Amino acid sequence: MNSFGQIFRISIYGESHGKSVGVLIDGVPAGISLKSEDFEKDILRRKPNKTGTTPRIEEDFPNITSGIFNDKTTGAPINIYFENKNTKSSDYDFVLQTPRPGHADFVASRKYKGFNDYRGSGHFSGRLSLPLVAAGVIAKKNIPEIEIEAEILEIGGEKDYSSILEKTIAEGDSLGGIIECTAKNMPIGLGEPFFNSLESMISHLIFSIPGIKGIEFGNGFEAAKTKGSENNDRYISTDGKTATNNAGGINGGISNGNDLIFRVAVKPTSSISKTQETLNFQTKEIENLNIEGRHDACIALRMPVILEACTAIVLADMIMVNKAR
Amino acid sequence: MNSFGQIFRISIYGESHGKSVGVLIDGVPAGISLKSEDFEKDILRRKPNKTGTTPRIEEDFPNITSGIFNDKTTGAPINIYFENKNTKSSDYDFVLQTPRPGHADFVASRKYKGFNDYRGSGHFSGRLSLPLVAAGVIAKKNIPEIEIEAEILEIGGEKDYSSILEKTIAEGDSLGGIIECTAKNMPIGLGEPFFNSLESMISHLIFSIPGIKGIEFGNGFEAAKTKGSENNDRYISTDGKTATNNAGGINGGISNGNDLIFRVAVKPTSSISKTQETLNFQTKEIENLNIEGRHDACIALRMPVILEACTAIVLADMIMVNKAR
Amino acid sequence: MNSFGQIFRISIYGESHGKSVGVLIDGVPAGISLKSEDFEKDILRRKPNKTGTTPRIEEDFPNITSGIFNDKTTGAPINIYFENKNTKSSDYDFVLQTPRPGHADFVASRKYKGFNDYRGSGHFSGRLSLPLVAAGVIAKKNIPEIEIEAEILEIGGEKDYSSILEKTIAEGDSLGGIIECTAKNMPIGLGEPFFNSLESMISHLIFSIPGIKGIEFGNGFEAAKTKGSENNDRYISTDGKTATNNAGGINGGISNGNDLIFRVAVKPTSSISKTQETLNFQTKEIENLNIEGRHDACIALRMPVILEACTAIVLADMIMVNKAR
Amino acid sequence: MNSFGQIFRISIYGESHGKSVGVLIDGVPAGISLKSEDFEKDILRRKPNKTGTTPRIEEDFPNITSGIFNDKTTGAPINIYFENKNTKSSDYDFVLQTPRPGHADFVASRKYKGFNDYRGSGHFSGRLSLPLVAAGVIAKKNIPEIEIEAEILEIGGEKDYSSILEKTIAEGDSLGGIIECTAKNMPIGLGEPFFNSLESMISHLIFSIPGIKGIEFGNGFEAAKTKGSENNDRYISTDGKTATNNAGGINGGISNGNDLIFRVAVKPTSSISKTQETLNFQTKEIENLNIEGRHDACIALRMPVILEACTAIVLADMIMVNKAR
Repeated sequence: MNSFGQIFRISIYGESHGKSVGVLIDGVPAGISLKSEDFEKDILRRKPNKTGTTPRIEEDFPNITSGIFNDKTTGAPINIYFENKNTKSSDYDFVLQTPRPGHADFVASRKYKGFNDYRGSGHFSGRLSLPLVAAGVIAKKNIPEIEIEAEILEIGGEKDYSSILEKTIAEGDSLGGIIECTAKNMPIGLGEPFFNSLESMISHLIFSIPGIKGIEFGNGFEAAKTKGSENNDRYISTDGKTATNNAGGINGGISNGNDLIFRVAVKPTSSISKTQETLNFQTKEIENLNIEGRHDACIALRMPVILEACTAIVLADMIMVNKAR
Repeated sequence: MNSFGQIFRISIYGESHGKSVGVLIDGVPAGISLKSEDFEKDILRRKPNKTGTTPRIEEDFPNITSGIFNDKTTGAPINIYFENKNTKSSDYDFVLQTPRPGHADFVASRKYKGFNDYRGSGHFSGRLSLPLVAAGVIAKKNIPEIEIEAEILEIGGEKDYSSILEKTIAEGDSLGGIIECTAKNMPIGLGEPFFNSLESMISHLIFSIPGIKGIEFGNGFEAAKTKGSENNDRYISTDGKTATNNAGGINGGISNGNDLIFRVAVKPTSSISKTQETLNFQTKEIENLNIEGRHDACIALRMPVILEACTAIVLADMIMVNKAR
Repeated sequence: MNSFGQIFRISIYGESHGKSVGVLIDGVPAGISLKSEDFEKDILRRKPNKTGTTPRIEEDFPNITSGIFNDKTTGAPINIYFENKNTKSSDYDFVLQTPRPGHADFVASRKYKGFNDYRGSGHFSGRLSLPLVAAGVIAKKNIPEIEIEAEILEIGGEKDYSSILEKTIAEGDSLGGIIECTAKNMPIGLGEPFFNSLESMISHLIFSIPGIKGIEFGNGFEAAKTKGSENNDRYISTDGKTATNNAGGINGGISNGNDLIFRVAVKPTSSISKTQETLNFQTKEIENLNIEGRHDACIALRMPVILEACTAIVLADMIMVNKAR
Repeated sequence: MNSFGQIFRISIYGESHGKSVGVLIDGVPAGISLKSEDFEKDILRRKPNKTGTTPRIEEDFPNITSGIFNDKTTGAPINIYFENKNTKSSDYDFVLQTPRPGHADFVASRKYKGFNDYRGSGHFSGRLSLPLVAAGVIAKKNIPEIEIEAEILEIGGEKDYSSILEKTIAEGDSLGGIIECTAKNMPIGLGEPFFNSLESMISHLIFSIPGIKGIEFGNGFEAAKTKGSENNDRYISTDGKTATNNAGGINGGISNGNDLIFRVAVKPTSSISKTQETLNFQTKEIENLNIEGRHDACIALRMPVILEACTAIVLADMIMVNKAR
C-alpha cells in the first residue's frame, strides 16, 4: 500500500535513479494558497548541505501538475514530482551479487523476484522522503495554528556532536541519532481509542521513513522504569493542562491539549566507505565490501524536517477526521 | 476507526462496564478448525491471576456467534463477544468531576462532548485487549509456522522484579515494564516500502493497546548511538541470515527472514490507590485523589499475550497481502 | 470485505440459521438519542407481514450491546444483533447435492471450499438485510433533514400488482419488481469526482443487497435514448434547482440539490415451490427440484425500507466526509 | 477519495486544461512486461477518431515515470501521465456565470467554493477516462486469461445508428447510448457477499466514468418483469455452467463461472451547440446558451474501451484479493 491517511491522503511514487519521485495528495480543501516557492524552505532544510551529508546535489524543484488553479488549491488531487537529474547508476550494479548490509537490496530482490529497480535502493531510497516533505508543506498549510518543530537531541550518543561527526566521516563510517519532535497548540481530541490512536497514526507514518528504528511518546521507555505516582500528569487547569507532560500530550490514544512530544531513533547510515565483510551471494564467499557511491554519513542530520512533515500530515488528517463527526 | 488490517481485518467494540466486549474478524480463510477451547490458553494468560493484577475476575468465555459451522471457519465474518459480569459501576462516578490523571477520562469527555461511557474507562478500557487476544488466537491459527513469543524483560526497571513489585503494591503505587516480542521462522518479504512497512503496521496496532508509550525494533534506540560499521548486520548465508540481528529482522520495512524482534515500553498503571493531587474540574481546586476501584498494579504483567496477539494479527494480514500479488 | 463507509462505517455479520445476525457501526457522533424502540417502525416495515412474503416470523428485537449510554450514542462503536429463533435447518440439507438455481449455494461452496454454512443461504441470506435496516435507522437519525422514501413502482411488470401476485403465489412461482427511492432536501456537494461519485457509493451499497440486478439514476436507461437538448436539466434558480430532473439530482457524481432519485430492479425470488429442472451435482443427472422451505414469493415487497436504509447510510457517510474538509 | 481498489489500487489526477492527466497504480505484481507501445491500441480506441467525436486531438503518449525497470514492472507504484497539449481554455470562461446544464460546473463551484478549475470541466472532464484506460491496459496484462469485450448496442435508441447520428450532429445536438460489456473465461468465486459483491465493485468503478446513468447485470431490469421459474438459470454441468445466463454470471454477488455480462446507459453529451435556455447566475435571467468549444456529439461512441478498462481493473483486483486467502 503506497497510500496513507483517511481524508488528507498521500500516495508516493518514484525511485532514486528513475525519472522522478513524486507524491499525489488527495483531500486537500479548496482555496489554500499554494505556490512552488512555499516549498523552498522545507526542501532546503532536507537538502544535504551540511557536514555529514551526501554530495549528491539535486535541484529539487517541485513540479505541481494538478489540483492548483490561480495559485490556490482546487480541492482536486495535487500531484507534485521532482526530477532526478544527478544520478550515477553505474555505482550500484554490484548490489546484485553483494547486497549491502543494512539496506533493502536483499529483501527487495526477494520480495519482487529480482525485478526491483536496485539502483540507489530504488523505491526504498531515502530520496522518497522528499515527496513526504512536500506533502508536509501542504499539510502544515492546513493546520497553521499548530507549531511543529523537530530538533536533533544527539548524534552518535553525543549532544555536542561536531567532533564525533568529523571523526566518523574521516573513518568512512556513519552515525545514528535521536530526534525529538514537538507540536504546540494542539487541539484536544485527535485520535481514536481503537485502532487509530494518535500514537498509532504517527508511528505508522514515521516508520515508513527509511532508517527509523524506534519511537517513544512523552517519557517513553523511561516511563517503564517509573511508578504511577511519578508518571501520572496531574491536571492544573480545566483546559486539561498538566503540571508535567510525561504522557507526551496523549492519553488513551487521544491528544489532551498539552504539547505532543515524541522522539525517534535513527540508525547510522547503512552505506559506509569503511571496509565491511559480507557475503557475496554469487560466489558464496565472505568478502570485503567498500561502498563507493555517494551517501550521507548521518541521515539523522536531515531528519528533522521529515519528521515535522509526517507529524503535520497525520495531524492534518486527524483534524479533518474529527471535523467529520 | 475501529478496524485494522487489509485482508485479515478486525473490528472491536464494547465497554468495560457495558454488556460485553467483542471483536468482529473478517478475511479469515474457510476451513480452519476453531472451537471455544482454542481460546482458553491465551485468555488465561491474559487473566489477572498473578501478584500485581486486578481482583476483578471475569469468566471470559468466548461466545462465537457467526462464521463457524461444524467447528470450522466458513470464510464469513467471525463475531466473538465476552460478557461483562463482574462490574461495579458505582466505583467510577467521581471521574466526572475529577478526571483521573493518566487516564482517558478528560480526553474522552471532551472528544465525545460528555456522552462517553466513563465507567471503568468505557471503550478505552484495558478490557478491550481481551477481544484483541481472541483475534490473536485466530491469527495464530492462520500462521502456525511462525513462533511468536513475548516475555517481560523488566518491571520497574528491574529484571528480578518480585521484591519491587510487592513493595510497590504495599505502597498503593504502580509500575511500568518493558516487554520483548520475538517471532521466529519469519518469511522473507512481509511489509511494504511505503507506507505499510512492517514496523509501521506493527507499531500501528501495538499503540492501540492502552498503556504503550514506546516501541523499538532490533537494537532500536541503542542503534542511534552506534556507528554503521557496528550496526550493520552482515550476511552469512544466501537465505539472508545475518551474523547479528541489530535490524530486528527488518530491512527497508520488509522482513528479512531473521527473527523479528521488538520491545515496548508499558507505562505504570494510571490508577493507584496512593493519594495523588489533581484538579477537581468542578470546584477548580486541587484536591487529593484516592482511586479505590479494582486495578492492576502493573499492567505490563498481563501484556505478553496481548503483544503476541497483535504481532500475529499483523503477520497474518501481511502474509495474506503478499499472497495476493 | 464486510465493511462499508469512510467515516460512518458499517460491518455486518451472521448467518440465516446461525445464532444471530448483526451489525457493528463505527463513526456515529456522540449524543444522538437511541433506544430500541427507535428501530421498531423500520424493522416492522421489513417484516414478512404481507401477501407474498415468507411465513418465517422472527421477533427481530435489536440487542444493542455497545456504544450507548443513558440512551444516547457515546461515539464508540455500536454493536446490534438480532437473534435467530425460528430456524428450520433441516430444510436445507439438499443444497449440497442440488445447488438451487439463482442462489449462492454453488458459488459459496466453491469460494469457501465446502466450508460455508449453507443453511438458508448462510451469510448470503436476505436475513442480513435486517442489520442493514438497523444501521439505516441510525443513519437516518444522523441526517434528520433529509427525507428518504422508497416505493414499489411495479411487481411482475404491473403497477397494480395484487392479481398477478396472488396468481403467481398460487402457481408456486415468484415475481420481481422495480422500486424507486427518492431523497428530498438534499445538500449540494455530496460525492467525489473520482472514484466516490454519489452514484458509485449508492450503487456499491445497493448491490450488496441480495436480489438487486440493476440500478439507474434519474431517467437512467431512458437517457440513453434521448438527445442532449431533451435530457439536459436547465437551471431555474441560483440554488441549482432545475426545471426537469433527468439527472436524478446528480451532476458529475455530485449531488446538485435537486431530489436524488434512483430505481432498482429486484429479481424474482430464486426459491420457488414450482418444480424446476436442474443438475444434481452428485448424480450428474438433471432432476426435478421442488424447494419446500419457507420463502418470499416476491422479495421486492420488503425492499423499500432496505433501499432507504442503504441510501441513508451512504448520505450520512458522505455528509460526514464533506464536513471533514 | 481519488483511489479505488484493495490490492490493485489506482489513484487518478489531473484536469482537462491543466498540464496533464495521470494515474498512479499500486499493487502491480513485479515482472510483468510493460512498454509504452502496450498502451497504443486501447488509447487509440478511446480517441475521438470517428463521426460524432470531438475535434480536440491529443497525442496521448503515456509517460511512465516509475515502477518500470528494464521494460518490466518492479512491484513499486507505477505513475503514468499524459500531457495536455491541445487546450483552448478561453472557451470556458462563460461557465462562471452560466453553468452548463448537465455538467458539473455548478456543483463543482459550490463544492469547492469557487476554487475549482472550471476549464473544460477541470477534474470532472471525460479526459480523465484516459488514465483509466491506461490503468486498464495494465490490469488486462494481469489477467490475460479473461477476455473482456464491450460493444455498442444502440445509440439514440437505434441499433443501426449512423443516420440518426449524422442527423443529430447536423442539428448541433447529442445522443446517448447503451453499451454491453462481457467477460469470458471468468473464474468462479470473485466478489464478496457483503459489501464487495462483484456487482458492487463494478458499479462503483463504472459510475465514476462521467456520463453513466445506469447499469444492469444479466437480464437486469427485465428480470423485474419475469417470474422466478423463467429467470432462474438451471445448472447443466458441475463446473457451474447454466442453460441460460439471466444472472449475468453472478449469484449472491459472486462470479459463477458463466460469462460476466452487464450493460450501461450513457447519457447524451451535455455540451451541445444547439441553443438551450438556462439561467445566468449573475444576471438571474434565463438566457440562450450556445456552447461553442469542442465536444463529442456522442460520448457513448468512445465508451467501450473505457468500460473494458474498468472491468479489467475490478477483476484484476478481486482476483488478487481472492489469492490472499
